[in-house]
Amino acid sequence: MKFALFGSMFPDRSAKAEEQIYGVCDAIKRHGGQLYLPENFYISLPGNIRQLLDPICELAETLPDVDMVVSVGGDGTFLRTAATVGDTGIPILGINTGRLGFLAAINYSDVEDTLSEVMRGDYKVQDRTLLKMTTDEVFPPNHFNTNALNEIAILKQDTASMLSIHAYINNDYLTSYQADGLVISTPTGSTAYSLSIGGSILSPTTPSIILSAIAPHNLTSRSLVVDDSSIISLKIESRSHMFLVSVDGQSRVLDETVSIQVRKADYTLRVVKRVGHTFFETLRDKLMWGADVRKQNK
Amino acid sequence: MKFALFGSMFPDRSAKAEEQIYGVCDAIKRHGGQLYLPENFYISLPGNIRQLLDPICELAETLPDVDMVVSVGGDGTFLRTAATVGDTGIPILGINTGRLGFLAAINYSDVEDTLSEVMRGDYKVQDRTLLKMTTDEVFPPNHFNTNALNEIAILKQDTASMLSIHAYINNDYLTSYQADGLVISTPTGSTAYSLSIGGSILSPTTPSIILSAIAPHNLTSRSLVVDDSSIISLKIESRSHMFLVSVDGQSRVLDETVSIQVRKADYTLRVVKRVGHTFFETLRDKLMWGADVRKQNK
Amino acid sequence: MKFALFGSMFPDRSAKAEEQIYGVCDAIKRHGGQLYLPENFYISLPGNIRQLLDPICELAETLPDVDMVVSVGGDGTFLRTAATVGDTGIPILGINTGRLGFLAAINYSDVEDTLSEVMRGDYKVQDRTLLKMTTDEVFPPNHFNTNALNEIAILKQDTASMLSIHAYINNDYLTSYQADGLVISTPTGSTAYSLSIGGSILSPTTPSIILSAIAPHNLTSRSLVVDDSSIISLKIESRSHMFLVSVDGQSRVLDETVSIQVRKADYTLRVVKRVGHTFFETLRDKLMWGADVRKQNK
Amino acid sequence: MKFALFGSMFPDRSAKAEEQIYGVCDAIKRHGGQLYLPENFYISLPGNIRQLLDPICELAETLPDVDMVVSVGGDGTFLRTAATVGDTGIPILGINTGRLGFLAAINYSDVEDTLSEVMRGDYKVQDRTLLKMTTDEVFPPNHFNTNALNEIAILKQDTASMLSIHAYINNDYLTSYQADGLVISTPTGSTAYSLSIGGSILSPTTPSIILSAIAPHNLTSRSLVVDDSSIISLKIESRSHMFLVSVDGQSRVLDETVSIQVRKADYTLRVVKRVGHTFFETLRDKLMWGADVRKQNK
Repeated sequence: MKFALFGSMFPDRSAKAEEQIYGVCDAIKRHGGQLYLPENFYISLPGNIRQLLDPICELAETLPDVDMVVSVGGDGTFLRTAATVGDTGIPILGINTGRLGFLAAINYSDVEDTLSEVMRGDYKVQDRTLLKMTTDEVFPPNHFNTNALNEIAILKQDTASMLSIHAYINNDYLTSYQADGLVISTPTGSTAYSLSIGGSILSPTTPSIILSAIAPHNLTSRSLVVDDSSIISLKIESRSHMFLVSVDGQSRVLDETVSIQVRKADYTLRVVKRVGHTFFETLRDKLMWGADVRKQNK
Repeated sequence: MKFALFGSMFPDRSAKAEEQIYGVCDAIKRHGGQLYLPENFYISLPGNIRQLLDPICELAETLPDVDMVVSVGGDGTFLRTAATVGDTGIPILGINTGRLGFLAAINYSDVEDTLSEVMRGDYKVQDRTLLKMTTDEVFPPNHFNTNALNEIAILKQDTASMLSIHAYINNDYLTSYQADGLVISTPTGSTAYSLSIGGSILSPTTPSIILSAIAPHNLTSRSLVVDDSSIISLKIESRSHMFLVSVDGQSRVLDETVSIQVRKADYTLRVVKRVGHTFFETLRDKLMWGADVRKQNK
Repeated sequence: MKFALFGSMFPDRSAKAEEQIYGVCDAIKRHGGQLYLPENFYISLPGNIRQLLDPICELAETLPDVDMVVSVGGDGTFLRTAATVGDTGIPILGINTGRLGFLAAINYSDVEDTLSEVMRGDYKVQDRTLLKMTTDEVFPPNHFNTNALNEIAILKQDTASMLSIHAYINNDYLTSYQADGLVISTPTGSTAYSLSIGGSILSPTTPSIILSAIAPHNLTSRSLVVDDSSIISLKIESRSHMFLVSVDGQSRVLDETVSIQVRKADYTLRVVKRVGHTFFETLRDKLMWGADVRKQNK
Repeated sequence: MKFALFGSMFPDRSAKAEEQIYGVCDAIKRHGGQLYLPENFYISLPGNIRQLLDPICELAETLPDVDMVVSVGGDGTFLRTAATVGDTGIPILGINTGRLGFLAAINYSDVEDTLSEVMRGDYKVQDRTLLKMTTDEVFPPNHFNTNALNEIAILKQDTASMLSIHAYINNDYLTSYQADGLVISTPTGSTAYSLSIGGSILSPTTPSIILSAIAPHNLTSRSLVVDDSSIISLKIESRSHMFLVSVDGQSRVLDETVSIQVRKADYTLRVVKRVGHTFFETLRDKLMWGADVRKQNK
């Protein structure tokens, strides 16, 4: 079985994370896997780790034709891995090197068990919807990813003025948000930025998209969940005539004459899940749903 | 075309509402419809209205085999009409006698235009999902409706103590809510009670169910949207050993030994919609999404 | 130094809590304190604990003239202790037997250190504001406490219908809440029920009162903070003509003809605080403000 | 009685607003007032309005020693007027030329009545607290106002990364916000930006400050109300090492090595209020508290 491993390239990557990256590589090899590493990621690693890796992996400039991609890091690393994997259909296994993530949902301590299960085919693959952004402006290729696993956000570029965001669903006028921004999220992204601004949590396989305003001026503004076959069109007005569009956290300045369309991407991302482990488990752990604040005060 | 008309039976029904009930009946007759009225509703009307109605309608003890049911009143009246129409598949047209409703979405002033459209078949029928509650306790027939167009709510019966609601989705443990209650809502109900406690709005045809806690003790509690093929199971603990279950606002006391299952009902409710009128229009009007509070303060 | 000790009388009091109650009594004695126990509380304890207590405490039918009252249990126990201490001005020390409370803010493991500090006068006393409810109906004495350390809440008695609560501040009309209820909270209570329904946290010594609606039908409803010299008057309408008023969780049914006034009580409750321990510490611990949910997902 | 009039200088000022500016000037003159206009404001007006104004007003380069300042425009205009009036103690009367504001709370249609009342001394002056920002960096004089009538906000400068804001109250550690920003608001500002991000409304004379996070990553984050004698200290960390500070909407980039202190300003702003008109009236009107959304759906 062939694996490609992608790791965190954040400048603040810890030495412990680097050791765990090697640990995962070593485990893959020991379980009989064949391992590829992206060249630029390999180069980013310190010399001692590279020496350990040399005998057990091959380098690749582009994503090789593997059976599974392993992402080692946080959810941010997983998002970048997903952008590289794109529409190839190769399933991704997310291992976290720090705290449990929603995407990097497998703890380092479970790597051995997980690889045993993977090697004997004892795992599930879950399809995750992505959002695709299109505009009437041509984006230079290779410079701006327009597919989002988490969310596409419209944000004000400057701080002084708010945005007016005129929103249409399937060409029906929805509303004009007066706000600092608008977040359009997949079920996968519903536990990320969307949650910070009051959005509901969407179970990962719900065929839905959720729209939530950032700091809405209108107090009756509420998150809206629509069918994921919907086409969302946005026209933006800004005192500075500019706004930002952010795709999974990567942002770009656009002119307000550019209108935005958001819809479901043509492909899904395939996420590797261990059998018997549910989304709700991750949710309870991450949101500390077991803990009760008010109880003690009564 | 045969119509049955159901009107508000609230004790605080106004004289104006009664005049409008007659007005709708008269309009149906003038447009060539054949009209049936439930006997108990007819009897609740004042003498002068009854006299006007006598020549233009027939009375019926049970729901006759009509082509369309017309509900005249508020959303509460529509909910009761829906309970009577049940799984017959007869489409319902909701006319409001006061302010615009989400269900009673046609204003009295549009009755003439709407009936013209209906008589020439120029309308849409939208399928709305209902929720069905089952328990291991047998409910006496005809005494408690267990199908909800809006929501099924678990509520504490007494005020002193909170509930512990252990929730499972498709037999996977979700969480234990420590709260005053839990509201499980359809997309249709997402603009009703669910919205008051912070739930997102679900577009009516989204195949989803939304769960929201009332006054949750755990500050990280958030609304959760799941696929409407989900089976939600609840086990409730209460210091008084009792709790309330409310189906579209009609409630009943249950013992905490009774566990509750909520799933999609086997049938949908068919709602008559005018062509060219969208849910978002109603939303803007009802939620005053056009109005902007903060704008003026900047 | 004379102490009276009040402990949890909840039926679900654990054996461990009972041991800790004895532990606190023993520690008071060892630190040279003179100890009184309420007779009914003593009787509620199991025989072996009573035998241990016999040599070290005296029983009292009413609150004796002591220097400090010690509450051992949760915040619920503290609230009942506060109701007994009333306007005597005797400071209360809150020790929790389970999880840290906002009122029972001293952990059992810190009892020795705390008592050493108390015996040498090395502690602070913080004045906490209470709310007083008055009505035009005479409450039978000794049957219903009308002073609240946490909150006074107006709640619907039945589940089917909402309340209309017409609110006035210093005789100026504020608004008419259409809601399941209204919670009027002290700064102390702002971390209890008020917080569950979206209220802000008020630092304990802020001279303010916070009003928050429960499940408000009006989406623009927001919590309101007013000066604690304000007099809040409420007139309630209910379809059932009845409503509940709850004072620190103890509730009573009232007729809608009874109007309610809420203002600051004439006395404060004096809470013993350890030097160098702040409210913000408790807040961080109780609300897990150290934990970061979204971070990992980026 | 001497008046200085400040009007909107927004580039999108309407012709109608300009006519109303003249209307207010004319009314002041007719009621026997002596009128001064800032030179730069006068110059910004169209020729025909200037011709009408010439006989009835005098120009001034700096704020003359008047009895009252009149602000004609929206709340934004009022904020800029307040910045100019500063600590002079001259009371400000806010007249709106569009929709009712919280600060520009007098409608144009009430100008005649209001001026009659003002000329005969029949009005109240309400003291409004301001916040003062200090840093260890010296701000060039005349370039950046550090006193806020509404709010002081810490905002991220770039979109990709969140801020870590370490907050202290009177040197006691509060918490470390992981968020897009933090808004520290006066009671006056509690109905502006603070409200958009979930803050409670503070009655204008409440001696309090309210802190609210923007898009907090920690789901247990809640608004916090502290006594307005508190000194709030902030240390900010940002991946870009920069952040924005915004004082009543005017922002400036700072380096993360700069720490921020926020406290009550040494002076208050004196706002002219009509007798018999309350804050709650404005609140009901602005927040549409009269309107009830859910009612109709029941």
